[in-house]
Amino acid sequence: MEQKKATMIVFDGDLDKALASFIIATGAAAMGKPVTMFFTFWGLNVLRKDEHIPVKKNFLEKMFGKMMPRGPEKLGLSKMNFGGAGSKLMKHMMKKHNVVSLNELIEMAKELDIKMVACTMSMDVMGIQKEELIDGIEYAGVATYLAEAEEGNVNLFI
Amino acid sequence: MEQKKATMIVFDGDLDKALASFIIATGAAAMGKPVTMFFTFWGLNVLRKDEHIPVKKNFLEKMFGKMMPRGPEKLGLSKMNFGGAGSKLMKHMMKKHNVVSLNELIEMAKELDIKMVACTMSMDVMGIQKEELIDGIEYAGVATYLAEAEEGNVNLFI
Amino acid sequence: MEQKKATMIVFDGDLDKALASFIIATGAAAMGKPVTMFFTFWGLNVLRKDEHIPVKKNFLEKMFGKMMPRGPEKLGLSKMNFGGAGSKLMKHMMKKHNVVSLNELIEMAKELDIKMVACTMSMDVMGIQKEELIDGIEYAGVATYLAEAEEGNVNLFI
Repeated sequence: MEQKKATMIVFDGDLDKALASFIIATGAAAMGKPVTMFFTFWGLNVLRKDEHIPVKKNFLEKMFGKMMPRGPEKLGLSKMNFGGAGSKLMKHMMKKHNVVSLNELIEMAKELDIKMVACTMSMDVMGIQKEELIDGIEYAGVATYLAEAEEGNVNLFI
Repeated sequence: MEQKKATMIVFDGDLDKALASFIIATGAAAMGKPVTMFFTFWGLNVLRKDEHIPVKKNFLEKMFGKMMPRGPEKLGLSKMNFGGAGSKLMKHMMKKHNVVSLNELIEMAKELDIKMVACTMSMDVMGIQKEELIDGIEYAGVATYLAEAEEGNVNLFI
Repeated sequence: MEQKKATMIVFDGDLDKALASFIIATGAAAMGKPVTMFFTFWGLNVLRKDEHIPVKKNFLEKMFGKMMPRGPEKLGLSKMNFGGAGSKLMKHMMKKHNVVSLNELIEMAKELDIKMVACTMSMDVMGIQKEELIDGIEYAGVATYLAEAEEGNVNLFI
């Protein structure tokens, strides 16, 4: 019998919340659950490539894009970030305790066939384009999320 | 066969999280799901009328009431708000991409018969009175939320 | 027939979110639902004893431990905390309206047999040891959370 789905809306895009999302997601997938992660608003930053991608943007979109962190290495903590020091400290402690990094978790997620979906409406509003996001993800709107959540029993908003 | 319910606890009351709540809620309702939104703590600010309502309050309640945003137009972003500039920027980008505003989403929610419930315990604690909240909503406590969530399969805390 | 479970991931560890978690948890338990609360990342601070516990830590762990709040009385609000003034104000308003305090809610949770679980991976990363946390809780990882959530219909991330 196929297991029910797990879905996660990744909204906040802080390092700690992104870690929590992927730890739960990869854990669930390892237990055999089909998992969908839906990245929306600030959560889109988790999926950004870390280099600058030259795409056509208007002034405001450029500004927004510059101020938001580009990818897992640039994310801050939701609390006690202290301009990035807290974030570095947490990564240091994770390494020391052999906890896999966010980048490794994202790779694991791909290998475990976790469906990662970027919210197209949020991309429009925040001026983020497909070229700026990592490969191996899908693009969809809220209806797609709802269809997955309908078949899920563990549906989280993170 | 009647669909299972969707419930949302709207806790944070930031513009971006409120938008996410209503986009999911109206999307679910449009797909035929009965939806209940339970507004608690800072989430109550989403339901406040935008004008000052003269009700009897003690000094602390008045102070609290003044410092909290009055309604959708006054809400800030959970990140990159910059004293309201981020919030204005997001509204501008939404308009540009024909995304409906929070006020319009609330109207849609009413038309789609989404049950909007203000948490009475939070109202007491934060000194908010019924006269200060918009029309067409219900008033209840956590037991009511739990009864709805019990019949739901998509239960989110936002 | 046994009721389905309710699970909560308590991630944020702010006073207001901790209150919301325990109000929902004790409400659900009072209605006969088995409830599991999984405390992770900043949520661990909710379970800390309020006195200093002399355990062996390295420099960074000591620093982290000192900067994070020790237990329910020290938690701040997620918004409008103003260096603790907001938090005091909310406690004052709660008392005035006969809303039980977070400490009382935690006692109620124990009496209602709510399973409180501290996330061991987060404890490692944040350098928190068992001696520093309150009695009557369990210790486990994400697999334990997922097993409980699998049997639940109300699964929240707070």
